[in-house]
Amino acid sequence: METENGSSATLLITCPEKPGIISTVTNFLTEHIANIIDIDQHTTDPRTGIFFMRIEFDVESQTIQKLEQDLHELAKDYSMEWWLSTKEKRKRMAIFVSKADHCLMELIWRWKTNEIPVDIPLVISNHADLKEVVESYGIPYYHIPLTKDTKENAEQKALELLKGKVDFIVLARYMQILSPKFISNYHNKIINIHHSFLPAFVGANPYVRAYNRGVKLIGATAHYVTNDLDEGPIIEQDVQRINHQYTAEDLKVAGRHVERRVLAQAVSWHVEDKVLVHGNKTIIFQ
Amino acid sequence: METENGSSATLLITCPEKPGIISTVTNFLTEHIANIIDIDQHTTDPRTGIFFMRIEFDVESQTIQKLEQDLHELAKDYSMEWWLSTKEKRKRMAIFVSKADHCLMELIWRWKTNEIPVDIPLVISNHADLKEVVESYGIPYYHIPLTKDTKENAEQKALELLKGKVDFIVLARYMQILSPKFISNYHNKIINIHHSFLPAFVGANPYVRAYNRGVKLIGATAHYVTNDLDEGPIIEQDVQRINHQYTAEDLKVAGRHVERRVLAQAVSWHVEDKVLVHGNKTIIFQ
Amino acid sequence: METENGSSATLLITCPEKPGIISTVTNFLTEHIANIIDIDQHTTDPRTGIFFMRIEFDVESQTIQKLEQDLHELAKDYSMEWWLSTKEKRKRMAIFVSKADHCLMELIWRWKTNEIPVDIPLVISNHADLKEVVESYGIPYYHIPLTKDTKENAEQKALELLKGKVDFIVLARYMQILSPKFISNYHNKIINIHHSFLPAFVGANPYVRAYNRGVKLIGATAHYVTNDLDEGPIIEQDVQRINHQYTAEDLKVAGRHVERRVLAQAVSWHVEDKVLVHGNKTIIFQ
Amino acid sequence: METENGSSATLLITCPEKPGIISTVTNFLTEHIANIIDIDQHTTDPRTGIFFMRIEFDVESQTIQKLEQDLHELAKDYSMEWWLSTKEKRKRMAIFVSKADHCLMELIWRWKTNEIPVDIPLVISNHADLKEVVESYGIPYYHIPLTKDTKENAEQKALELLKGKVDFIVLARYMQILSPKFISNYHNKIINIHHSFLPAFVGANPYVRAYNRGVKLIGATAHYVTNDLDEGPIIEQDVQRINHQYTAEDLKVAGRHVERRVLAQAVSWHVEDKVLVHGNKTIIFQ
Repeated sequence: METENGSSATLLITCPEKPGIISTVTNFLTEHIANIIDIDQHTTDPRTGIFFMRIEFDVESQTIQKLEQDLHELAKDYSMEWWLSTKEKRKRMAIFVSKADHCLMELIWRWKTNEIPVDIPLVISNHADLKEVVESYGIPYYHIPLTKDTKENAEQKALELLKGKVDFIVLARYMQILSPKFISNYHNKIINIHHSFLPAFVGANPYVRAYNRGVKLIGATAHYVTNDLDEGPIIEQDVQRINHQYTAEDLKVAGRHVERRVLAQAVSWHVEDKVLVHGNKTIIFQ
Repeated sequence: METENGSSATLLITCPEKPGIISTVTNFLTEHIANIIDIDQHTTDPRTGIFFMRIEFDVESQTIQKLEQDLHELAKDYSMEWWLSTKEKRKRMAIFVSKADHCLMELIWRWKTNEIPVDIPLVISNHADLKEVVESYGIPYYHIPLTKDTKENAEQKALELLKGKVDFIVLARYMQILSPKFISNYHNKIINIHHSFLPAFVGANPYVRAYNRGVKLIGATAHYVTNDLDEGPIIEQDVQRINHQYTAEDLKVAGRHVERRVLAQAVSWHVEDKVLVHGNKTIIFQ
Repeated sequence: METENGSSATLLITCPEKPGIISTVTNFLTEHIANIIDIDQHTTDPRTGIFFMRIEFDVESQTIQKLEQDLHELAKDYSMEWWLSTKEKRKRMAIFVSKADHCLMELIWRWKTNEIPVDIPLVISNHADLKEVVESYGIPYYHIPLTKDTKENAEQKALELLKGKVDFIVLARYMQILSPKFISNYHNKIINIHHSFLPAFVGANPYVRAYNRGVKLIGATAHYVTNDLDEGPIIEQDVQRINHQYTAEDLKVAGRHVERRVLAQAVSWHVEDKVLVHGNKTIIFQ
Repeated sequence: METENGSSATLLITCPEKPGIISTVTNFLTEHIANIIDIDQHTTDPRTGIFFMRIEFDVESQTIQKLEQDLHELAKDYSMEWWLSTKEKRKRMAIFVSKADHCLMELIWRWKTNEIPVDIPLVISNHADLKEVVESYGIPYYHIPLTKDTKENAEQKALELLKGKVDFIVLARYMQILSPKFISNYHNKIINIHHSFLPAFVGANPYVRAYNRGVKLIGATAHYVTNDLDEGPIIEQDVQRINHQYTAEDLKVAGRHVERRVLAQAVSWHVEDKVLVHGNKTIIFQ
């Protein structure tokens, strides 16, 4: 999808339904000499619902600023929320980890191969274990130890490190609960991987509980983080078949592969601006 | 798996672990001129656990009675529970339905093609809707209307109809909760299909709740019925991918296909004596 | 998706890429007081490729004729091929079968529940086996016996029965190869189910060949019929895990479930105008 | 599955069917004070077929030598082929790679976490690209350049490096065809990953051909290498859903994840002695 002379851009829009909105937006882009490459849209109700749209288009670099200015005007008329991004400007992703490395390594591997085209300005951890491997990829690693008493300070420190440096955060098996204060800084911009098929097994030790319940499939769920534990908008889920021979430990091992697959997929979609949030749900424009 | 002169039989065994148990049982069968065709076994712990075994074997029809007698002796020495079945004697399955026909029709279709080799002596329903279609297959249909007040009587009537006629019961989207008294008559012999990926969405209206939660996969679960609603031993589960375009009604429609697939699979395994129950879990010898 | 006073319609378009085409079409619909509900589009190359679009919209019944007339004009300017359908006018589907009933019964079941909203004016078969069951649903059944020598006559007879009565044909495990002459009457309007994961096992006896090759998954493929056997545009495929315990006969039994699932899905998409053909490939607007 | 005082061992057996074989073997093990933990068996025909068995058992380290000696005798009576392995003695795996790193990295990651409990004495490549990353894990890397003319020499060099050092070889996207001479040294001991769902797209460029054919699922196949290209016994296969939006390049990227999953699974089973080869097919005792 490389463009020689132009700039590939993506526009996300949410607004109340209104007749003619699609042609209004496509006309707007045509007038700004933008060539639409891909268009996706969804509505909760074609008459009275909420409207969601994603448009990918080619546009000359010099006209994108003008387009952005004019969008402000258009948005007012339609009570739109909108987000414009360009491929030129890569998104910046912070990764939070604890001790487990599988999700981290999957993200790093997909970053290295450019399958997930992001920058990774830093990794933050409450443990030192993964410092060496992360730094071997030239990525700064910040070890911020954390106890119950120091949590507030630790989060403050993290916020300072992140400030102005990142566009979103991935919790790659980060085993700490973030405070509402922290989360409020990154609304719908923190992606967590939960090691169960939510809403089954919300909370701690899902694999042990899955083992005790005798389920025949285990799963993983990637979701945006909200103040309600494991209740945020789900981006992606997948499952893996297991059987009675699996111990709780075997579930954990097998589950790692679902976790990294699901998290990497969710991060890809987020980076490609394919996710829109509507209340506690997501619209994914695949 | 047809045998010309013999009788294909299946033996299921559960007992506490004890060294040499496998060779004891295989010797026992060899001594009874049984030719082992398939053997499966599982243990919760090779030293102190519970041992489970399934053996499929060919044996002359005239020796099976002697084999059965001798098994009683063997079982005492090992504190075994055991179940012996022969292919000659087909299992008898009652089906309970309400108004939805998809699970019922799937079972009937697989019964007609002999993919599920059972007899169906009767179908019982709290509604009359499916009477005609069931009877068109030559299967007796009993309509037992049921209100809160008449539930006890209705169950009593059903028990009388079933008595001595069936080996197990399938609730093919039967929308009534059975009483502990009824269930006690068919311990681990009632299979239910729940229209969610348990333990997510226990109870009523799982599709509406799945819709509201914004999950990306919906599922179905076949399980043995116990007194705890939707908490019985899980036999089979499966899922289907959905997306933001699905309404709650669409989930219901898409879910029907997972339900019938999952229920039919569970019934197949039950009929082929491939399921052993251990507490609240199942061992499936596929 | 019911509309009270209006008519829900779907427009499919294929044409060479041209800047502004999306806004042209959306403007055209807006001018005809059509309210766009869903829009999907695809391009093989945003500058020099072929452009494909599907638009679902609400429109007053009385304006649809005018819209259709004006589309002819628009189409000329853009060298468009286009297809307009309305929900009011259900598609008419003929089913061809031989002896196996599983795909037929799946289609009939989904037709009865209105999951696949079509009319079925007739079923044609080279055998009499399924006459009774088909007629029990009130669907006319034509038994046209067929030998090598009578094939031409038989096809001629079928064409006469179909003439003016059906919009597309489904080969639901019809075990005869249609002549190029027959196919030319229903270009991209005949859907076949092949019982393998194409292009593996093109031709006869795919399950036996899958068994001999020792594959670990079997599959089924629904495709439009062309003159090249099993080479037509693929609409849908799916697979099922098997193992070394499966005999060739077991593969056949297990495969039936994939076949009916895959065929029913392909027919659904065709009926909902979600399939566009591009050379030997399909675009599916899910 | 750790054993404190004993040694966990696995016995694989292939022989012609003979009545009583299972009890013979289980008795044999009981006499050698071996505690059977898991038993799996398969037969191509219970009377005249080939019999396959896998037994996992605990045994004292000092008795295993005697057991091995006595097995030679038993094997004669039954025309058995057999393989005995112990968990104490880890298998040694060589990896062959070219330039692509995804399969290599997956194996290394699962080796590091001990999910695949092997030793990796060396990696051999016809390119130097992956030298640094492999050596960073402390694994020796041998770069053996290879042209058409030097192939024989190169293979000879590789054979010398491997001699006495490895138990099996994994071709982790090694883009060279091995000679029959090389293969004869490692009969059923070379695992290859082919980037298609075999037997579809045998040979070169499967993703381009999958793209041109318009398939709706792409796959990967792990198999033992024989002299017939891509025709060896299949160990594992899996697929991934794609759609019309995928370019040939996208298929390649998406396919990488199936490839590493399928290859890692096949290697796991091989390492755990869960694979038996029968002609051109495999029996997998999961």
